[in-house]
Amino acid sequence: MTVTEVVPDNTIEVLDHGFVRLDDAMADDLSVVNGARVSFARRKTEMEEADEGLIRFLMRDRHGSPFEHNAFRFHIRCPIFVAREWFRHRIGSFNEFSMRYAKATDEFYVPAAEDVRTQVGKPGAYSFERVDADLAEEARTELEALYEEAYATYARLVEKGVARELARSVIPVGAYTQFYWTVNARALMNFVSLRNAEFAQLEIRRYAEAVERFFAQEMPVTHAAFVANDRTAP
Amino acid sequence: MTVTEVVPDNTIEVLDHGFVRLDDAMADDLSVVNGARVSFARRKTEMEEADEGLIRFLMRDRHGSPFEHNAFRFHIRCPIFVAREWFRHRIGSFNEFSMRYAKATDEFYVPAAEDVRTQVGKPGAYSFERVDADLAEEARTELEALYEEAYATYARLVEKGVARELARSVIPVGAYTQFYWTVNARALMNFVSLRNAEFAQLEIRRYAEAVERFFAQEMPVTHAAFVANDRTAP
Amino acid sequence: MTVTEVVPDNTIEVLDHGFVRLDDAMADDLSVVNGARVSFARRKTEMEEADEGLIRFLMRDRHGSPFEHNAFRFHIRCPIFVAREWFRHRIGSFNEFSMRYAKATDEFYVPAAEDVRTQVGKPGAYSFERVDADLAEEARTELEALYEEAYATYARLVEKGVARELARSVIPVGAYTQFYWTVNARALMNFVSLRNAEFAQLEIRRYAEAVERFFAQEMPVTHAAFVANDRTAP
Amino acid sequence: MTVTEVVPDNTIEVLDHGFVRLDDAMADDLSVVNGARVSFARRKTEMEEADEGLIRFLMRDRHGSPFEHNAFRFHIRCPIFVAREWFRHRIGSFNEFSMRYAKATDEFYVPAAEDVRTQVGKPGAYSFERVDADLAEEARTELEALYEEAYATYARLVEKGVARELARSVIPVGAYTQFYWTVNARALMNFVSLRNAEFAQLEIRRYAEAVERFFAQEMPVTHAAFVANDRTAP
Repeated sequence: MTVTEVVPDNTIEVLDHGFVRLDDAMADDLSVVNGARVSFARRKTEMEEADEGLIRFLMRDRHGSPFEHNAFRFHIRCPIFVAREWFRHRIGSFNEFSMRYAKATDEFYVPAAEDVRTQVGKPGAYSFERVDADLAEEARTELEALYEEAYATYARLVEKGVARELARSVIPVGAYTQFYWTVNARALMNFVSLRNAEFAQLEIRRYAEAVERFFAQEMPVTHAAFVANDRTAP
Repeated sequence: MTVTEVVPDNTIEVLDHGFVRLDDAMADDLSVVNGARVSFARRKTEMEEADEGLIRFLMRDRHGSPFEHNAFRFHIRCPIFVAREWFRHRIGSFNEFSMRYAKATDEFYVPAAEDVRTQVGKPGAYSFERVDADLAEEARTELEALYEEAYATYARLVEKGVARELARSVIPVGAYTQFYWTVNARALMNFVSLRNAEFAQLEIRRYAEAVERFFAQEMPVTHAAFVANDRTAP
Repeated sequence: MTVTEVVPDNTIEVLDHGFVRLDDAMADDLSVVNGARVSFARRKTEMEEADEGLIRFLMRDRHGSPFEHNAFRFHIRCPIFVAREWFRHRIGSFNEFSMRYAKATDEFYVPAAEDVRTQVGKPGAYSFERVDADLAEEARTELEALYEEAYATYARLVEKGVARELARSVIPVGAYTQFYWTVNARALMNFVSLRNAEFAQLEIRRYAEAVERFFAQEMPVTHAAFVANDRTAP
Repeated sequence: MTVTEVVPDNTIEVLDHGFVRLDDAMADDLSVVNGARVSFARRKTEMEEADEGLIRFLMRDRHGSPFEHNAFRFHIRCPIFVAREWFRHRIGSFNEFSMRYAKATDEFYVPAAEDVRTQVGKPGAYSFERVDADLAEEARTELEALYEEAYATYARLVEKGVARELARSVIPVGAYTQFYWTVNARALMNFVSLRNAEFAQLEIRRYAEAVERFFAQEMPVTHAAFVANDRTAP
């Protein structure tokens, strides 16, 4: 059996102003087993040891549908550029904070000094290296200054009467947004396999790690089978 | 407030050998409200009167996404010809009993006498009328005889060593099958609007009525708004 | 028959630096008819008058699937805040320009003077009115100044060695992006019904108008039926 | 370059009364390249050698979305039990012949003698072996007899006035049906990887082989990359 730590308050803080909060879930390993066993018209009320083998078999042989009979509802706060990558995952449901009528948020992503990086290598094979402390501080200062200027422009435009939906044009993609995301374990695994991965951008990777912790908390056997399967979604 | 009767054991019997059983749900009206209100970054822990108006507004103006942050997991037993119509609804998850390796079921749909009908009218405008008692009985007898013959053929073929996946070719579409179906309220409403409807075939309509009763049980305000919206899904 | 004007070069310019270009299509009215008539196992090689009635019937009675046997591939250039609304339409395929490795674009949306507007009315019932010429000019100047400052910050950060994927955090959502969008007529109609609509934001509405013109060009009978159906997608 | 044979009349016959016909396509390898290159804002009008490497890279690293900017429209005739497996593939569009109002077809699947098989081995590890000539012939005779009896029952019920939608209950799943299927290359590859595979049932495998031939015909470079990738869809 996998031992999984429980997340206090179902909230994991991510980056400087973000979080992943598990709002609700209808998810356990048994739902996978019963989804699969309907093929044989046998239903169980608790997991047995043989069922762990069944879950590993389903994962390995890409029988994906039994992993869909569950749901996770997350509340997420992240920079817009992270949300933009997230929303490309079409199997799942989203409702996002809208700046059309509501006031734009004044919180923006400034990376921790150790997360300021440079890109090295050639197209198709880039990697990233931490920059020196001076450049890291300089970058943070530049970002903060521009964010402040952008928000001031936004506030002036709105103050003068320009519609919020138009004034928001100046808001940088480093601004925080928030949304609800409801997703089943199969689509969640697909998200995690692509975003908690070496080639994913560091910022969305931090969020995918948080999502994966909740997944492991709710469906430990399924998560262990996913890890054993090289983190490839079925 | 809508008053909704609770289904005992979460199982509704349908037709002669079928049922709809709500296996689990993560569904309430509040999830719709919070899904919508994330637009304004306000979250609630219980419904207030204004929220009922919000749900009616979302339904009427076709803001469909807030209705997706929930899940119903059903276990269903129905004739294959009903399942075939059901599986055309692609937004949702299915796992079905398979006759490839398991023994085919020997239960088949025989309509109650009052459900034996004839088709009247012209193409594009058909309607149905109950047949007289004699023909109803004759039809039931014919169906039973053929089902019995088909199952006997299946059993003989398997007995002689023909693979089940091939022997099943003779099984009529009136045979019962079973499956798990996990679906959110938006897709459920789309299913109900098309299948619990005048032009749907009587048999699937009975199932759609059962699905709708569970929907009303779990999300009474949303269901009332759906009914008020002419049962059109948002 | 509907007479439809053909778009030269299959490109419609939108806003100050954007466009919608129909890259390719496999789409005609006959595909709807044949998709529907497979129900009756009759296939046609050209439209007849009765087929126009069939298309109107399918649209009105919400038989949506026959409208899916076709494809439009668009190449689109629009501000990020427009793309963000567009990508919420999950039935369809997207590939977007990425600022992770490529240099950010230096073109940004500045509304024409007559498109600078103010928001009037109350929550749930907002409308928009043109602002006076002075404020319009002031808004345009403010937007341009902030865009210039943001891009200069981006360029400095990249110049100093900060990774593009991180430096892009300062790019405002008014920046232009581009993407491919492949979609069938049913999902296209859903997009148009929601986005070429009174309550859609003016900027995405201009794009939805362009998309609709191409739809009318390729499938004139279907488009006419859509219009006759109050522009509600089946 | 891959050399691919062209299918005459775009029709491949399958089983005793079935076929796969490519009705139309908007599909070539270049669409993959341009879908991917929009990331870099570079568009091409013909394939170059480097593009073949790009396609292999996209396939291997599971960048699936560039494979979606195309469409294949197939017309298919197959037994109902094959169609039932086919329709489980939810990414794609289907319109099927309906027996609700139209007369049921009187053509049924009878396997060629060499396709009559027995199932050997244990649960989870079944394989199939051809049966001897006598049993093969006996099985074919049993199938034919039951099909004939079922169709006669159907015809009698309809003749007496029972609605077709009800009389069809006796039609065996070996009856032929037909449908249109419109699908993009990514979903097509997923179908082929699961159905033109060792563990798929022989009958659907024959259809998946036909689908794959059309795929190779229209997108030879993409197909070669798919094969090189162990026939795993991106």
